[in-house]
Amino acid sequence: MGGNSFDQLVEIFIRFPGIGPRQARRFVYFLLALDASSLLRLTNAINSLREESARCERCGYHFLKKGGKTNLCQICADPHRNREQLMIVEKDLDVDSFKKTDSYNGLFYILGGLVPILEKDPNKKVRLVPLQKIVKEETTNSKLKEIIIALSANPEGDYSTQYIKELLAPLLTNTATKISILGRGLSTGTEVEYSDPDTLRSALENRH
Amino acid sequence: MGGNSFDQLVEIFIRFPGIGPRQARRFVYFLLALDASSLLRLTNAINSLREESARCERCGYHFLKKGGKTNLCQICADPHRNREQLMIVEKDLDVDSFKKTDSYNGLFYILGGLVPILEKDPNKKVRLVPLQKIVKEETTNSKLKEIIIALSANPEGDYSTQYIKELLAPLLTNTATKISILGRGLSTGTEVEYSDPDTLRSALENRH
Amino acid sequence: MGGNSFDQLVEIFIRFPGIGPRQARRFVYFLLALDASSLLRLTNAINSLREESARCERCGYHFLKKGGKTNLCQICADPHRNREQLMIVEKDLDVDSFKKTDSYNGLFYILGGLVPILEKDPNKKVRLVPLQKIVKEETTNSKLKEIIIALSANPEGDYSTQYIKELLAPLLTNTATKISILGRGLSTGTEVEYSDPDTLRSALENRH
Amino acid sequence: MGGNSFDQLVEIFIRFPGIGPRQARRFVYFLLALDASSLLRLTNAINSLREESARCERCGYHFLKKGGKTNLCQICADPHRNREQLMIVEKDLDVDSFKKTDSYNGLFYILGGLVPILEKDPNKKVRLVPLQKIVKEETTNSKLKEIIIALSANPEGDYSTQYIKELLAPLLTNTATKISILGRGLSTGTEVEYSDPDTLRSALENRH
Repeated sequence: MGGNSFDQLVEIFIRFPGIGPRQARRFVYFLLALDASSLLRLTNAINSLREESARCERCGYHFLKKGGKTNLCQICADPHRNREQLMIVEKDLDVDSFKKTDSYNGLFYILGGLVPILEKDPNKKVRLVPLQKIVKEETTNSKLKEIIIALSANPEGDYSTQYIKELLAPLLTNTATKISILGRGLSTGTEVEYSDPDTLRSALENRH
Repeated sequence: MGGNSFDQLVEIFIRFPGIGPRQARRFVYFLLALDASSLLRLTNAINSLREESARCERCGYHFLKKGGKTNLCQICADPHRNREQLMIVEKDLDVDSFKKTDSYNGLFYILGGLVPILEKDPNKKVRLVPLQKIVKEETTNSKLKEIIIALSANPEGDYSTQYIKELLAPLLTNTATKISILGRGLSTGTEVEYSDPDTLRSALENRH
Repeated sequence: MGGNSFDQLVEIFIRFPGIGPRQARRFVYFLLALDASSLLRLTNAINSLREESARCERCGYHFLKKGGKTNLCQICADPHRNREQLMIVEKDLDVDSFKKTDSYNGLFYILGGLVPILEKDPNKKVRLVPLQKIVKEETTNSKLKEIIIALSANPEGDYSTQYIKELLAPLLTNTATKISILGRGLSTGTEVEYSDPDTLRSALENRH
Repeated sequence: MGGNSFDQLVEIFIRFPGIGPRQARRFVYFLLALDASSLLRLTNAINSLREESARCERCGYHFLKKGGKTNLCQICADPHRNREQLMIVEKDLDVDSFKKTDSYNGLFYILGGLVPILEKDPNKKVRLVPLQKIVKEETTNSKLKEIIIALSANPEGDYSTQYIKELLAPLLTNTATKISILGRGLSTGTEVEYSDPDTLRSALENRH
């Protein structure tokens, strides 16, 4: 087609997570085939998203404001959540994943990414400074009992876990707050035969 | 998150080609993390797309108008294209695929889908009536020499090819226009060992 | 080709784990292209395998006899293994997997399969009777402290685990022997975003 | 397990087409679990394969002799096959694939591999010398009308096709024998949208 809005949209869709050039073009053709009212609904929803949502000033989660004037997300603002636990996750979607388990009632903190291994100043990429601030405050008033680092079980996740442990350790001396990490073992659906030694070792250690 | 614009966007993105519920949510979180100017660029491009583009009144291709007042796409309006050939394709993207081959200079016609096998009135889904109209006109003035049905090599494509052949046959009696279909054979990258008998048979028939 | 030994071999190779008809034929063509000495090495090795190996009369593991007259495999015969622990696994290969972890020094017991869900008499398929006999003996002499059921984290594995627990429970009343199962959690390489609620719940419970 | 026949078999199975170390071990455990009569059937079939089969001295195909004293395979010995056509294929399995099409009645010639691109003397790997001999003979007596090079549609196949064309060309000057290659186009199941330009170009050229 070549031209203006078409090419712009291809460019924008290529930046969407998991989308390559071919699918980006399919998206634009999909939009071209949509009727006017569907397109309007889409642009309206995008505009509303910006207006209706905010980023929680405490945990960094994106949330719908629903008319309220709070700068805190529903979880951080909820008096029934257990403030003794703070779970550090990589991204918003991970919060959703843990909410589905119905077995965590503490607070969250969203890093906004994993700590890049070769980056000199990881603060540019990951929200580490506000994390330190929160941990300092919450340990000073003795509220925080446990920090759960809940990152993916891959090299980047492991590196980030180690990095954060070392970053927070000095803040936790002389406090009752301890750091924990997610348990390793067989995840649902995995067979013993195809499991790596690390996973089997963890599954054995965590037997119950 | 649960709520308004977020859920609306998930719903809309699920309708995008190849997108499931999980990726739809990732898209919305991606939008949430975008800065205001990127979002504006996106909604502007979507709005412009509608204004800047039109559907060719002859072949059905979506095209950018570029200020011109034509109702014809660049291909249909191009006096250098060979009007003796008409290639029937399923969708806009297929036009792009054939343009990349640099070996077809005729006109196109976009069906807007394949002929549904169990549908009583396929005209609801596929642009068959305007196709008949074009074929009638172009054969009357003796312009059209060849109609190439260029559909995918799968059951739906084969059914549609047969359906269109039978639909157009009565219009072509006493004309010099003939119908052809794409050649079958080994497509790039396929091995003899893993090819089905039909493909090998075609490859053998089309040897050269 | 059609005929005798060729077709027989195809039939036999189809029964090999993970081999379909096409690959079975490829195997036979591979054998056809082998020189006489390689073929002889193959048949000799198969014949020797039978003679050199035995099935451990205690745990069911297949082992190379190495001239010894023992009916016990190297593990069961090893006085340095910890006889207080018995790990129940599905198959020989699982023993190899756990040996690679270097973190288990107890004995094994090979079921020879998982307990079939719809089978009236699972003893036909799985070695449950000798398991009961061993457990009875080893608890009577107070040797056995822990039975680890180490089956895959899928429905068949879970069903088998439950079945074996109930089968052994009556034998363990008034003994100090307890039953444990493998820990669940994130296995190496899994991301939080793509983990199911069960796995995350386990990972959370097993945090450390 | 460690030891003799077990490790030998693992080593042999690793050389089977498409088999890695893990599956090789699974094969040996599968053999260990087989009863004596099944194992005997396997080794008998392997021994018989060698005795019952021969390599056709003309085309190189492996075939079952069935008591006959011929050195020719069923196809080369069949007086009803069309001796005017010779199809050059990579391997035995490709003969089977073309036989399934029921649309070729000529003779075959098995290269035994593709021409290696970086090999100085490809004759070590591929049966090119006997091919030249056959072509010389069959063109001298004017029997041969067409040589069909039927190799896979990938870079190695294309290189081999070109190599063989140039190798045979000098033998075909002043003869009525022509060389042909398999037709390219859409293979069964491929969609226009996902086809590469080469495939579409061929499909267009081979339209009918």
